[in-house]
Amino acid sequence: MFTGLSAFPLTPLVDDHLDEIAFSALIGRLNRAGVDSITALGSTGSYAYLSEQERARVAHLAVENAGDTPVFIGVGALRTSQVLAHATAAQRAGAAGLLLAPMSYQPLTEADVFELFRTLSEHTDLPVIVYDNPGTTHFTFSLDLYRRLTELPGISSIKIPGVPALAAEAREHVAKIRAVIPEHVSIGVSGDASAAQGLAASCDVWYSVIGGTLPELALRITRAVQAENTTEALAESARLAPLWELFAECGGSLRVVAAIAEQLGLAQRSCLPLPILGLDHSDRARVAACLIRLGL
Amino acid sequence: MFTGLSAFPLTPLVDDHLDEIAFSALIGRLNRAGVDSITALGSTGSYAYLSEQERARVAHLAVENAGDTPVFIGVGALRTSQVLAHATAAQRAGAAGLLLAPMSYQPLTEADVFELFRTLSEHTDLPVIVYDNPGTTHFTFSLDLYRRLTELPGISSIKIPGVPALAAEAREHVAKIRAVIPEHVSIGVSGDASAAQGLAASCDVWYSVIGGTLPELALRITRAVQAENTTEALAESARLAPLWELFAECGGSLRVVAAIAEQLGLAQRSCLPLPILGLDHSDRARVAACLIRLGL
Repeated sequence: MFTGLSAFPLTPLVDDHLDEIAFSALIGRLNRAGVDSITALGSTGSYAYLSEQERARVAHLAVENAGDTPVFIGVGALRTSQVLAHATAAQRAGAAGLLLAPMSYQPLTEADVFELFRTLSEHTDLPVIVYDNPGTTHFTFSLDLYRRLTELPGISSIKIPGVPALAAEAREHVAKIRAVIPEHVSIGVSGDASAAQGLAASCDVWYSVIGGTLPELALRITRAVQAENTTEALAESARLAPLWELFAECGGSLRVVAAIAEQLGLAQRSCLPLPILGLDHSDRARVAACLIRLGL
Repeated sequence: MFTGLSAFPLTPLVDDHLDEIAFSALIGRLNRAGVDSITALGSTGSYAYLSEQERARVAHLAVENAGDTPVFIGVGALRTSQVLAHATAAQRAGAAGLLLAPMSYQPLTEADVFELFRTLSEHTDLPVIVYDNPGTTHFTFSLDLYRRLTELPGISSIKIPGVPALAAEAREHVAKIRAVIPEHVSIGVSGDASAAQGLAASCDVWYSVIGGTLPELALRITRAVQAENTTEALAESARLAPLWELFAECGGSLRVVAAIAEQLGLAQRSCLPLPILGLDHSDRARVAACLIRLGL
């Protein structure tokens, strides 16, 4: 189940409330596009900003609109008891798996993070994805912590940050992780710009930001690698370089993907939770030009 | 009002619930010790981990038990609308001021942070303390942002991180900030280990972790500087070096202060919100030895 393309949709807001219509439509679109799974309430889904009630509602809408596509739900929170409450709600909504990042305010130790995952794995029957995203959590996993966590029952996948740009280095990087974790645990690459390289380097799944809004683009890369046509996958990723440049230069993938969704009419203007401001006028013009250049 | 010693109490938990008795007793103790203000729900007060209801309750208990000591309340949250809700609750509880840190999950821009403070300053009549704590928020203020923020109505103080250890460098550091902000805005030092140096370098207030649990120690330093006896203040801070070492070596001031409170019977064992584990056995032994050495 934790293979192929897992698409991370936005959770669009309108006037600081869930835009249920836009969110449901995004999910239906992903199901029709044929992604392998949908991860709602990832970082791209603004999980960290939403209330317990909003998150339960999003989980419900995701499952309701996903058809037969498995839905994973992000359950991260600053406090362990909040994580468990989100997990209970996700399970009740019909989630097929849970995604957990060690969100931090006070810096966390390895012991804190191990206990957090151990507590969740004891609390739920659902498979759990370990979400390693140091750019937002400010926690860095060691290989040894990967090893200890994947010995816990139910830990089924690790979402790793982007891999090195050079093929040999990417392979070595993924092989190092593979060497310390059990075979049944999948490795998923994130960092869209290096995803083709990551899949080519034996990652099992792409946890994809762009796949949540422009699923066809991400599917083309994923299916090429699955057909062992690495050259085509890398060429397709290179074609999307203008997009990866926007991610790097306009304050990160979330703000850019939100602007794309707004530009394409998939979300209303200012769909991100404040204080996160959307892109300014000139960056929006860059996004619009990029979409035209890519034939969207 | 934003001068002298502002004491930051813990918000102790017991079995993942507010320990209302312990918290009320901590506040009463600070009032009796004669601190100049109490800032509840600072980082030391675990604001980031508590629900809206818990935070409203803590604000109420703080004001109720503080006697005539002014109480400031931390209102930080990841989402602007949550900040405003906390501010409304704090005002209703009788807070004399608000403390706001730009908490982040997605990295914030200067524009995001400016708008966040502008929105709060429009929403409330209470004075606001700008809380600059890059170790937990991962946001770095520029001097120019200090300048722009302190032009907003109601912005009354800036809580800055620790100052350089050398007196001349500390003075220069504080003078640079003072040069860009209006005279009516006070500068408060945090980072307890450098607080004596900060006060000696013309900071107006010490936003103090240790002052929330061991107020007499922090008052001795503060009153010495106020009496223009810098030598005594620095000597007293040097005497507390074993404490500052524990802060640096045992995972930060919060875990150490929680262990101190637990050791002195001011909070029950494991008073921090999980996933933050308390100190392990050997670090607790160091804390106990330190308390004896300091005559506590």
